[in-house]
Amino acid sequence: MIIVLKRNATREKMAELEEYLSQFDVRVNKWEGTQETVLGLIGDTYVIDAEAIGAHEVVSSVQRVQEPYKKVNRKFHPDNTVITLENGIKIGDGSVPIIAGPCSVESEEQILEVAEAIKASGATMLRGGAFKPRTSPYAFQGLQGEGLDLLLTAKKKTGLPIVTEIMRVSHIDLFENVDIIQVGARNMQNFELLKELGHLKKPILLKRGLSSTIEELLMSAEYIMAGGNDKVIFCERGIRTFETATRNTLDISAIPILKEKSHLPVIIDPSHAAGIPSLVEPLSLASIAAGADGLIIEVHNDPKKALSDGAQSLTPLQFDGICKNLIRATEFFRQ
Amino acid sequence: MIIVLKRNATREKMAELEEYLSQFDVRVNKWEGTQETVLGLIGDTYVIDAEAIGAHEVVSSVQRVQEPYKKVNRKFHPDNTVITLENGIKIGDGSVPIIAGPCSVESEEQILEVAEAIKASGATMLRGGAFKPRTSPYAFQGLQGEGLDLLLTAKKKTGLPIVTEIMRVSHIDLFENVDIIQVGARNMQNFELLKELGHLKKPILLKRGLSSTIEELLMSAEYIMAGGNDKVIFCERGIRTFETATRNTLDISAIPILKEKSHLPVIIDPSHAAGIPSLVEPLSLASIAAGADGLIIEVHNDPKKALSDGAQSLTPLQFDGICKNLIRATEFFRQ
Amino acid sequence: MIIVLKRNATREKMAELEEYLSQFDVRVNKWEGTQETVLGLIGDTYVIDAEAIGAHEVVSSVQRVQEPYKKVNRKFHPDNTVITLENGIKIGDGSVPIIAGPCSVESEEQILEVAEAIKASGATMLRGGAFKPRTSPYAFQGLQGEGLDLLLTAKKKTGLPIVTEIMRVSHIDLFENVDIIQVGARNMQNFELLKELGHLKKPILLKRGLSSTIEELLMSAEYIMAGGNDKVIFCERGIRTFETATRNTLDISAIPILKEKSHLPVIIDPSHAAGIPSLVEPLSLASIAAGADGLIIEVHNDPKKALSDGAQSLTPLQFDGICKNLIRATEFFRQ
Amino acid sequence: MIIVLKRNATREKMAELEEYLSQFDVRVNKWEGTQETVLGLIGDTYVIDAEAIGAHEVVSSVQRVQEPYKKVNRKFHPDNTVITLENGIKIGDGSVPIIAGPCSVESEEQILEVAEAIKASGATMLRGGAFKPRTSPYAFQGLQGEGLDLLLTAKKKTGLPIVTEIMRVSHIDLFENVDIIQVGARNMQNFELLKELGHLKKPILLKRGLSSTIEELLMSAEYIMAGGNDKVIFCERGIRTFETATRNTLDISAIPILKEKSHLPVIIDPSHAAGIPSLVEPLSLASIAAGADGLIIEVHNDPKKALSDGAQSLTPLQFDGICKNLIRATEFFRQ
Repeated sequence: MIIVLKRNATREKMAELEEYLSQFDVRVNKWEGTQETVLGLIGDTYVIDAEAIGAHEVVSSVQRVQEPYKKVNRKFHPDNTVITLENGIKIGDGSVPIIAGPCSVESEEQILEVAEAIKASGATMLRGGAFKPRTSPYAFQGLQGEGLDLLLTAKKKTGLPIVTEIMRVSHIDLFENVDIIQVGARNMQNFELLKELGHLKKPILLKRGLSSTIEELLMSAEYIMAGGNDKVIFCERGIRTFETATRNTLDISAIPILKEKSHLPVIIDPSHAAGIPSLVEPLSLASIAAGADGLIIEVHNDPKKALSDGAQSLTPLQFDGICKNLIRATEFFRQ
Repeated sequence: MIIVLKRNATREKMAELEEYLSQFDVRVNKWEGTQETVLGLIGDTYVIDAEAIGAHEVVSSVQRVQEPYKKVNRKFHPDNTVITLENGIKIGDGSVPIIAGPCSVESEEQILEVAEAIKASGATMLRGGAFKPRTSPYAFQGLQGEGLDLLLTAKKKTGLPIVTEIMRVSHIDLFENVDIIQVGARNMQNFELLKELGHLKKPILLKRGLSSTIEELLMSAEYIMAGGNDKVIFCERGIRTFETATRNTLDISAIPILKEKSHLPVIIDPSHAAGIPSLVEPLSLASIAAGADGLIIEVHNDPKKALSDGAQSLTPLQFDGICKNLIRATEFFRQ
Repeated sequence: MIIVLKRNATREKMAELEEYLSQFDVRVNKWEGTQETVLGLIGDTYVIDAEAIGAHEVVSSVQRVQEPYKKVNRKFHPDNTVITLENGIKIGDGSVPIIAGPCSVESEEQILEVAEAIKASGATMLRGGAFKPRTSPYAFQGLQGEGLDLLLTAKKKTGLPIVTEIMRVSHIDLFENVDIIQVGARNMQNFELLKELGHLKKPILLKRGLSSTIEELLMSAEYIMAGGNDKVIFCERGIRTFETATRNTLDISAIPILKEKSHLPVIIDPSHAAGIPSLVEPLSLASIAAGADGLIIEVHNDPKKALSDGAQSLTPLQFDGICKNLIRATEFFRQ
Repeated sequence: MIIVLKRNATREKMAELEEYLSQFDVRVNKWEGTQETVLGLIGDTYVIDAEAIGAHEVVSSVQRVQEPYKKVNRKFHPDNTVITLENGIKIGDGSVPIIAGPCSVESEEQILEVAEAIKASGATMLRGGAFKPRTSPYAFQGLQGEGLDLLLTAKKKTGLPIVTEIMRVSHIDLFENVDIIQVGARNMQNFELLKELGHLKKPILLKRGLSSTIEELLMSAEYIMAGGNDKVIFCERGIRTFETATRNTLDISAIPILKEKSHLPVIIDPSHAAGIPSLVEPLSLASIAAGADGLIIEVHNDPKKALSDGAQSLTPLQFDGICKNLIRATEFFRQ
């Protein structure tokens, strides 16, 4: 950690800062430049709050050298984390499993029809929302518990593991038979929820917040891992920018950056990233090419009757055509 | 609601869309242009999901004419909402009450010292965090229940109403004696929490998410009001942009825009907006000038020992100097 | 074009608007809803200034249905534009030519060494800056005219067509023997420069501004095409967002969006997009997968001695390794 | 300047870096931490290109301690720069002069009518565009030279100094009798233009680019001052963010930040910042409260017939009402 001091630092204020720093197990080096004085802290500085140091009057700026995350950091865990599901599907082993399904579970007929279709096309996991975060209180909020039951029915009939979103700590028990619990973008910094999920042994699909930095995403994963759950999967699903031609902007660079900084797998959601069905295929291919560990794609048996997100869903027929190309591209890149 | 159709719309697909629209209580007008066909929906369209319409293949784009919010809309409630607290303080009546206090409650001595100091300077409410949302799981997470107790002690001793943040539905009972419950920026779209707060009768200070649009902020307030709680106060606290000279960018325009679109009061948090103590005064004065209904400012008795956000806190002495100017400016603008 | 009127529109103000609209060759349809009145304009509306209409007091909002660009619009030119250079290289025909070279031309030795190396690796065009836009007036500003001469020398020796940036109208004559003239991101809306380039017959590589929308990029290309020059190539090179892990954020979605809206080719610059050498390969592969018509990559014979942008340049050896993979991926995707 | 090295730095690579650094007149301090090695450079480092250092393989990150600008830096010029115009108006002396006028000069009648009206209301400078940067090549491009002549006529009749935008180096001679030359947001990094303006003795109003950081704005001013022209005035006119309720987001914090970092005056353009006439007054008052050195406001005698930007222009009557309040607020804040 590097601390740049203000030019007018008095001896007295300096002494206060030095006393403050003495509480930590770090060595302090000091240089005096022609215009600035700089302190360098050496040791295990990730427990030190950079802001607290910045509160000292004599401090002009503080820069971390060490990353503020530890358990998610590849430096301390050089090998890729590989997560294995009940049916043997692995995430993080170099393969590119495809998760597909509707935005919301709407009926038994719907979820079974979609589940069977996507399985036939090559998807190996089923997604579907039972509890839905909607911008409007007047919009369909999901089938709730009934939706979870329908997902479990679909799992039983097709053998596909299921991925579905949690929105509230008190629902955790309901998710006992869910294979992967999704934390939505709006809850990426719902720290109370993250802490509780840290006590489970189940894989967590952690979606990046719409305006969360990659470092903040890593820190949210650190919350889960700090609690003891090391099965975290990142999901990049588009960030908010000034561009309006797409709903969000897929940050494709997040794939290589996350994989460099962390050992955890990275999955891409091209459906939410763009909000445009015709972009699902090019963005999925790009994600595979850039090193993604999986894809999560919205498929609805009748998008125009969908109760949510219909505008960005693919039909099973469209998905089938795309899926073939994704599998071919995976073979090419991961051979 | 205006629906622009694609140029190659077949009669069959058109009929499907028209049938879909027939389920709503709206009249559909149609024009055929040289290049486009446009449908205009007349009636109570705010229950219609624009996305669901966009899912029809024949649809090129959908534009709302009516706002998607109703209870927070000034059109249906032309007068300002005025919220009155126990001690008679009003929010939304043209005055500019000042809420001040530390980021985190740290000890009885600290909170009492700050509470008395800010009261002497002219603040009329006390803020302080008991449950703290921190980016890092290794950072101080607040004194939790004990912090709430200390706030109540300070309230008892000084008579100042208290404002503090909630992070979890199961904590609601603990907030019984809190005067204003704050929903933090990271929870602005924690819809499960908003729904529960909608069942209370207590004022809710709803902070704008770091990358939430003004319309999304209005929709989150609509969640609370839809549940029956009409005491919502907006809080603009800076948005995330590309600029790095300040921690966030204060969206000063949000004041006149929110007050034009809604009847609810708008409070500004200059401490979080900039993250720089020297900017608190100019941003506060600017907020008063632009029509704000209140200010919430971080003050710590010893910022350099603060357990969180010390770098942006004012000392009681600094606050006292600024407070005088804020009160003078309020008299000038609200005379 | 759709015009939503305010609720309190008086007959008199309405008449003023209708008179204003009568100057254009459009038909005006009108609906009166329960809450709003809407006008629909049918005809050739792209010459109408939406803002001028918005200036009428009675107008609440204006929405275009037609795009504001014509010559770059795929609707009026369904086939891809293919640009053929002197040496037979085509851009826009489904191939993925690779342009490579240093940020700045620094010496004859440097540019020849790089040119020969990249040619041997498979690049088919040479890039290099003679006139350099630098944030600081104290930074190296390029070798200027001498730099252009060195590029022409390199072209002569290697047969590689050259791509280099123009910064000033009065320099146009100097670019006579340049194969593709680059307009940098900072000049994307230097309309005076665009107008002059519209009078040439030479291909123009138009880089997207750091915070320019896709529609603005299309409009800047329209400036060049409106002048008579139909050889425009788009270049996406990263946009400015809140993320700081990469210098900019590559907007990979811009590839399919631009190719859907326009017939012009789209090239990607992964070097500037990320500012990190290790990201050049994954972002290039992603671009090929998403449908890019070419790549432009920074290569320097000795990056650590580069006078500009060394930090993001590849060595010829690194480039050679990557180039092989890019060519293989191109064969896979464009077979 | 602080250089953090990678953990696996070999002696050989280190020696290369040290040799590179030896060319500069700086002293290099070195610390070896448990995990990182850090170099601190002491001396006049603003001539060192941080990127060039970043190009060395052994370098992990580079942080400047000194600012990269010198002539615009308040550290080396503690007093405010005050610019005095022909008619005695001062900018930067604590007053808040108001510049007003139409977006575009359209006719003699129009510009005279507006000039006389704004003068009567209390404005002390006239703005008006002769050369107009328009997104569309089909939009009105300004009256060009004729527009400049009309501005000079208005200046002669009213005595108001004039402010107008330049778009091209070759037009500089035409601006001989213009009092303040404006550089538009789109040309803030048109470095060739900035260099030429640096050779004049005339005040330059430098508008911040839509997505330019404050540091970049300071560097663009440094270009002008480096050429010898020390009469630079900053203009904040809104930045591009994700928010769509306003055309841009006024960065009100830019006022105190720019005034802290630089000695140059700062003017605010509330018309372009919001794009909404009803926001001009609150944003102008906020700007005065935050310390602005002036305002530039769009006023048109008949906004609904304006050839550009009518939607955001005030009528002379509206301006007159607002102007009174701005003058009162100035008296209050600058007494």
